[in-house]
Amino acid sequence: MPVLVMKFGGTSVADLARIRNAAQKVKREVARGHDVIVIVSAMSGRTNELVGWVEETSPLFDAREYDAVVSSGENVTAGLMALTLQEMDVPARSWQGWQVPLMTTSAHSAARIEEIPRANIDAKFAEGMRVAVVAGFQGISPEGRITTLGRGGSDTTAVAFAAAFDAVRCDIYTDVDGVYTTDPRIEDKARKLDKIAFEEMLELASLGAKVLQTRSVELAMRYKVKLRVLSSFEETDETSGTLVCDEEEIMEQNVVSGVAYQRDEAKMTLISVADRPGIAAAIFGPLAKAGVNVDMIVQNISEEGRTDMTFSCPVNQVARAQKAMEDARTSGEIDFHDLVADTDVAKISVVGIGMRSHAGVASTMFDALSREGINIKVITTSEIKISVLIDRKYMELAVQALHDAFELDNAA
Amino acid sequence: MPVLVMKFGGTSVADLARIRNAAQKVKREVARGHDVIVIVSAMSGRTNELVGWVEETSPLFDAREYDAVVSSGENVTAGLMALTLQEMDVPARSWQGWQVPLMTTSAHSAARIEEIPRANIDAKFAEGMRVAVVAGFQGISPEGRITTLGRGGSDTTAVAFAAAFDAVRCDIYTDVDGVYTTDPRIEDKARKLDKIAFEEMLELASLGAKVLQTRSVELAMRYKVKLRVLSSFEETDETSGTLVCDEEEIMEQNVVSGVAYQRDEAKMTLISVADRPGIAAAIFGPLAKAGVNVDMIVQNISEEGRTDMTFSCPVNQVARAQKAMEDARTSGEIDFHDLVADTDVAKISVVGIGMRSHAGVASTMFDALSREGINIKVITTSEIKISVLIDRKYMELAVQALHDAFELDNAA
Repeated sequence: MPVLVMKFGGTSVADLARIRNAAQKVKREVARGHDVIVIVSAMSGRTNELVGWVEETSPLFDAREYDAVVSSGENVTAGLMALTLQEMDVPARSWQGWQVPLMTTSAHSAARIEEIPRANIDAKFAEGMRVAVVAGFQGISPEGRITTLGRGGSDTTAVAFAAAFDAVRCDIYTDVDGVYTTDPRIEDKARKLDKIAFEEMLELASLGAKVLQTRSVELAMRYKVKLRVLSSFEETDETSGTLVCDEEEIMEQNVVSGVAYQRDEAKMTLISVADRPGIAAAIFGPLAKAGVNVDMIVQNISEEGRTDMTFSCPVNQVARAQKAMEDARTSGEIDFHDLVADTDVAKISVVGIGMRSHAGVASTMFDALSREGINIKVITTSEIKISVLIDRKYMELAVQALHDAFELDNAA
Repeated sequence: MPVLVMKFGGTSVADLARIRNAAQKVKREVARGHDVIVIVSAMSGRTNELVGWVEETSPLFDAREYDAVVSSGENVTAGLMALTLQEMDVPARSWQGWQVPLMTTSAHSAARIEEIPRANIDAKFAEGMRVAVVAGFQGISPEGRITTLGRGGSDTTAVAFAAAFDAVRCDIYTDVDGVYTTDPRIEDKARKLDKIAFEEMLELASLGAKVLQTRSVELAMRYKVKLRVLSSFEETDETSGTLVCDEEEIMEQNVVSGVAYQRDEAKMTLISVADRPGIAAAIFGPLAKAGVNVDMIVQNISEEGRTDMTFSCPVNQVARAQKAMEDARTSGEIDFHDLVADTDVAKISVVGIGMRSHAGVASTMFDALSREGINIKVITTSEIKISVLIDRKYMELAVQALHDAFELDNAA
């Protein structure tokens, strides 16, 4: 029978009633003729409670013990989901990571999946079991210890199972009903997308649209897993939600698919840096070591051997960035005149695979912002994305103006 | 290094502060030169919460899923205990049942331990690990599924580890500081015993002195594991608590070691039963099938082919017993004149290995009760125990009178 993977996040299994609701959706897919692999998260709040206990016990905890403790939340949900399905006369059993076994690296708390042997679960499907409920987010290391995949690891578990079992699709049930052209809280004309390309989803995910974990999208893209995002709190059918897929499968494509934003950005400029080969490494090495997540980078043209270097980072990392730069100046690694921080900026991005073949996206974007009197502070572009930094107070206005300018309320 | 097993029950690990307190005791034993195997229960309340979820999800639950869910509580404590010990600079790691692996039968929720291979834990001791923290109450079946040993299974886990690792002792830390000559809430002269023989402990445990689970005492007796019961809430040393051991190790022994009671008993009498070979089976077969835990049985002498049969059972099983007997009469399996239930009785027992070699224990007991005007309704005896049923209202008085009569406030 064709295998379908269904993943339910923490809010979708927060209590016994919601587990029953999720199980109903699983039962419906079984009735449609699927063998189903269900990946479950911990009941919402549980993981935080367990993490809190570990951190209180041992601030610099042994990650192997952290994994052993924290993984227990998913095990509880898996057992309860299997029992709920059995009550509905669906032949089901639970699997903990080590029982599959889902083999990972030994990088505890951030392990990577190495292999998912199919034999154990396939044998049960052959015996008539219709649903394998698998505890997400966890695996087993070569040393036989429990590992976890890091936050959002249940999405990644789901995609990996879909790849290993040649699943027809991987359905990610969550508390939103799909991927939107932009945040509906900011633009009420925001439209749910029926389909979105992997590359676009990756850009949107990394821009803070928290529907799917980036790693899971990467994995789906690599193994060509059809990924669908849909709501666990609504009636859903074969056409619900948003399908994340290869761009070839998207017949009609808007030039721009979505507008994303990141509110809490800061812009930092190193004024009059001595320009020499290796200067970028000398600046961004210390920043990386200090744990600063540098996003956009712009270097001005050099004049008389000196240049200005501008970069952006999350606003709560500004102090760390400043210290790293001052330390690098003190140690003589870099030389600059001043470091100016602007902590009142936001990033706005337009994303779309169609940009590759369409000129004029940038000018449409800049025109739209200009008409609203919004000044652009920094610009970066990639093949399918244009991002700008603007004053934070114009963020909502910019999102609305761009949504209009690219006519995102109309499907292609 | 000599191995010591230490077991901490749910109230002893109820929160992070108590886990730290327990870890301090473990650290002290490591400092004394022991390699330690710590068996932990779930934090108190956790197991009940998990059981509640399972029962609400599925009243006739699949015991394999029950075990998978419920065992997670011990896993959490094991990880937290290992982390706490590491914070105290004690090299420790946690082990879940399947990691040991603690091999059990497939009788889910009531599995029996089959084998505990030493290799994995011994290898870590050889590498310098000083404490193996093992999640109690759980193991793995031949099919690779998680099993649990039933309530109180953590005591049994501890004794089984002590046997497998030739431990010098198995210390059971609990919320009382030892085994008493009787319940201190009833008799304030009750005295803590320094030592008690396995056989006596078994009788007391089965009589409701809930310090140790009966199975764990049986296992300790079979494998000659020295078992010690002591408080996790007091300062303890090598002489604390009560040692449960072979009777040969108890030099001076009172004739009677303790007085036990069971409050909620009922006495039932089948009047004028047709006496014939097989009549006992015809009566107690149906009772067993109905789930009635029959305790004492007394058969009067037979007159003219008819006899009276008296038995005791917990008071909340009286209705079930009555129905089973009426059904058996209706079906013609047995014939009796009447069934009389006395639901206001209690059982009092005196227990002591010394009885074997001392005559006169019974008469001392009966005299003491008689002096207080307490009527004896049923008597049964075993080699090391005499039990009587009396009116419940005299229960406390009887316990006190017997404690005095056998001078239990004085050590031998």
